[in-house]
Amino acid sequence: MDITEFRKRGKEMVDYVADYLETIEQRQVYPDVEPGYLRSLIPEEAPDEPEAYEDVIQDIERVIMPGAASPACTELETVMLDWLGKMLRLPKDFLAGTEGQGGGVIQGTASEATLVALLAARSRIVKQIQAHDPQRSEVEIISKLVAYSSDQAHSSVERAGLIGGVRMKKMSTDGKFAVCGETFRKTLEEDKASGLIPFYFCATLGTTPSCAFDRITELGPICNAEGMWMHIDAAYAGSAFICPEFRPLLDGVEFADSFNFNPHKWLLVNFDCSTMWVKRRADIIGAFKMDPLYLKHDHQESGLVTDYRHWQIPLGRRFRSLKLWFVFRMYGLRGLQAYIRKHVGLAKEFERLVRNDERFEICADVVLGLVCFRLKGSNELNELLLRRINGARRVHLVPCQLAGAFVLRFAVCSRTTESRHAQEAWRHISELASELLRGQKR
Amino acid sequence: MDITEFRKRGKEMVDYVADYLETIEQRQVYPDVEPGYLRSLIPEEAPDEPEAYEDVIQDIERVIMPGAASPACTELETVMLDWLGKMLRLPKDFLAGTEGQGGGVIQGTASEATLVALLAARSRIVKQIQAHDPQRSEVEIISKLVAYSSDQAHSSVERAGLIGGVRMKKMSTDGKFAVCGETFRKTLEEDKASGLIPFYFCATLGTTPSCAFDRITELGPICNAEGMWMHIDAAYAGSAFICPEFRPLLDGVEFADSFNFNPHKWLLVNFDCSTMWVKRRADIIGAFKMDPLYLKHDHQESGLVTDYRHWQIPLGRRFRSLKLWFVFRMYGLRGLQAYIRKHVGLAKEFERLVRNDERFEICADVVLGLVCFRLKGSNELNELLLRRINGARRVHLVPCQLAGAFVLRFAVCSRTTESRHAQEAWRHISELASELLRGQKR
Repeated sequence: MDITEFRKRGKEMVDYVADYLETIEQRQVYPDVEPGYLRSLIPEEAPDEPEAYEDVIQDIERVIMPGAASPACTELETVMLDWLGKMLRLPKDFLAGTEGQGGGVIQGTASEATLVALLAARSRIVKQIQAHDPQRSEVEIISKLVAYSSDQAHSSVERAGLIGGVRMKKMSTDGKFAVCGETFRKTLEEDKASGLIPFYFCATLGTTPSCAFDRITELGPICNAEGMWMHIDAAYAGSAFICPEFRPLLDGVEFADSFNFNPHKWLLVNFDCSTMWVKRRADIIGAFKMDPLYLKHDHQESGLVTDYRHWQIPLGRRFRSLKLWFVFRMYGLRGLQAYIRKHVGLAKEFERLVRNDERFEICADVVLGLVCFRLKGSNELNELLLRRINGARRVHLVPCQLAGAFVLRFAVCSRTTESRHAQEAWRHISELASELLRGQKR
Repeated sequence: MDITEFRKRGKEMVDYVADYLETIEQRQVYPDVEPGYLRSLIPEEAPDEPEAYEDVIQDIERVIMPGAASPACTELETVMLDWLGKMLRLPKDFLAGTEGQGGGVIQGTASEATLVALLAARSRIVKQIQAHDPQRSEVEIISKLVAYSSDQAHSSVERAGLIGGVRMKKMSTDGKFAVCGETFRKTLEEDKASGLIPFYFCATLGTTPSCAFDRITELGPICNAEGMWMHIDAAYAGSAFICPEFRPLLDGVEFADSFNFNPHKWLLVNFDCSTMWVKRRADIIGAFKMDPLYLKHDHQESGLVTDYRHWQIPLGRRFRSLKLWFVFRMYGLRGLQAYIRKHVGLAKEFERLVRNDERFEICADVVLGLVCFRLKGSNELNELLLRRINGARRVHLVPCQLAGAFVLRFAVCSRTTESRHAQEAWRHISELASELLRGQKR
């Protein structure tokens, strides 16, 4: 949608809200619909091609308003997560459908998804152990649990362990900054030999420092064999998996218990919207379920209704699935794929510019929209360069540490980034580097 | 703001956003301001009287844009929580000011505030015990911890205990559905005698079932003497404390470590916005702090900057303080007080209608905007009545259980509720009751 249309549509939306408020007393206080009403009113999959804005907005009265805030908010979320799951070609186990055991939910951030998965895993292992050995207390079992992640995993993974009160071990990574099966197997054997209980592994697809991919086709079967919960955090990279050429990066997801990524990072959905899927919804509900009278409802035990409050930390919920619905329909799958490909293309373009300059080196494979690079030379030199780049306030870079090296990160992540921005950024960085190196020589 | 002005201002806002997007490349990628820049640009307190919309919107360019998303988002939040804290006459310890040890933060929901407080308390007690006795393991200490709440507390309090992996005890309440000092003291003595470590008490001001108030002037000194963390959850009732006549309900807050309420419930701020204050920010940060390189910044250790990511479960944050800033200025303190008083008046009006009908009884003191009532008679009768009321879809009531009785709850909570709505609701309920009782006689 261009700016001219945005002005028009935005103002129509203001009138829509005003009209709604002016006539609200003519509406029912409680909807009339049956559980599951919404799914049959819309297609089973996201459209391939963009739809007209008029068609999208007309569906608000047809699809949403009859179900008001609730159950429309819940039902649209379930169906949108199915749409998105199909766009990613997730195994069917992760979809809700009408009879599935799994399904998706919108969390606020990947930190929450990682934590929810860890708590669900903790609750599941405690129940499993107590089923065989009712004498063992929850506290004693928890004191033996170990969770695992990569030493490249996001800080929120370690934080989830801290909150859940369990040990969290960071595994070392290979030359590609990925956790591989052999390291994992060895660590597990050692830990089991010393009486610990491995219960949770958080794999990362697209690490924050360098966009590395843990080898989940090796790691998944190990988790399954050990009865451990495997969660996959693909916060940034997940959006790319809607493109067939990037989908192989997700191979191995079939071994996972839960999977999460952030459409608010790279799929044109405004913050916050972190989408999470689980294979067995009973696992996640088991960790949180509370049913006071003031939250009971008629369809409580029918199995027809999803109570997302049991799937997350907060109780209240916003109607975030509307953002997904609008974006999927306004862009279509092809529009979203084109958007991802354009960003990857811009990163590759920037990578070529860096590689053509002998003063610089590329520090990790450029797989998606992130380029890790540095001046050949000391960390101090690169810290100085970063300080000059960010001090000039024309480009903003966030650094990382890779195998002891201080590394600069060029991330393509704005809706409006074009080739000229990548070119200008490089010219600017390259000039600042020249200045810096001249100063060093003197 | 009436609907006509809403249409006008909403459309101006659409143009503002469009203009911003069209000219975004003329703006700096990173702000130029010094930490703490924002506080001096706006008043130290919320206005008493409403301000003109033009003045509010002009301040966006003057106050917010120079600080872009960050640090403006953080700094406005700190100052707005100080404004709101002053409106509530919170003890100075809870305010950030320029040199305070405490301060406020916006959480998504009260569930998150309760959990964050419990995790902070858990971390503090473990550190305290280990400082005296470094041999004791965290796991062993946690296995001895006990948290407390009222048996009327919200289900999210019990859930916080479940997530934090600690025992949670529900204390019985008195005839007013409040926890009192004596019960608490007795429970603590028993638990300490059996080797447990009381560490956290979540008091409720304005319980969900009946809007009861735990006796925090009795409970607070006990918590302080025992070195326990006292958190106060006033999710619903908190908004009323901006009125001097309701402020005595908050007396005893001076004993608390943390306090929370939801402006999204009753202070005209859209969901979500749950405001939380702590006396010692070091306590809360201690539970969560993680500092990977990609999240480091220049002012990290300066003490000038608040890193709210250490105050909450998620990492990312939305700019929710803008909602507070707009609402406080568009209504003024007096406008907000008038709004609270009007709702309490409507609840009292409904209470009188119930009391004038001998078939009904009032089941709890009507202190704020909630009326708990029922037909004199069996629970089954009242369940039937509720089913008819909600089935007619003109009024929607959520029930509760009070001392074994099934109770109906009439809650005044919409911005547009007027006397005629309370009157119509009562006429409707009363008619349905007559029908029901006639049917029962037959």
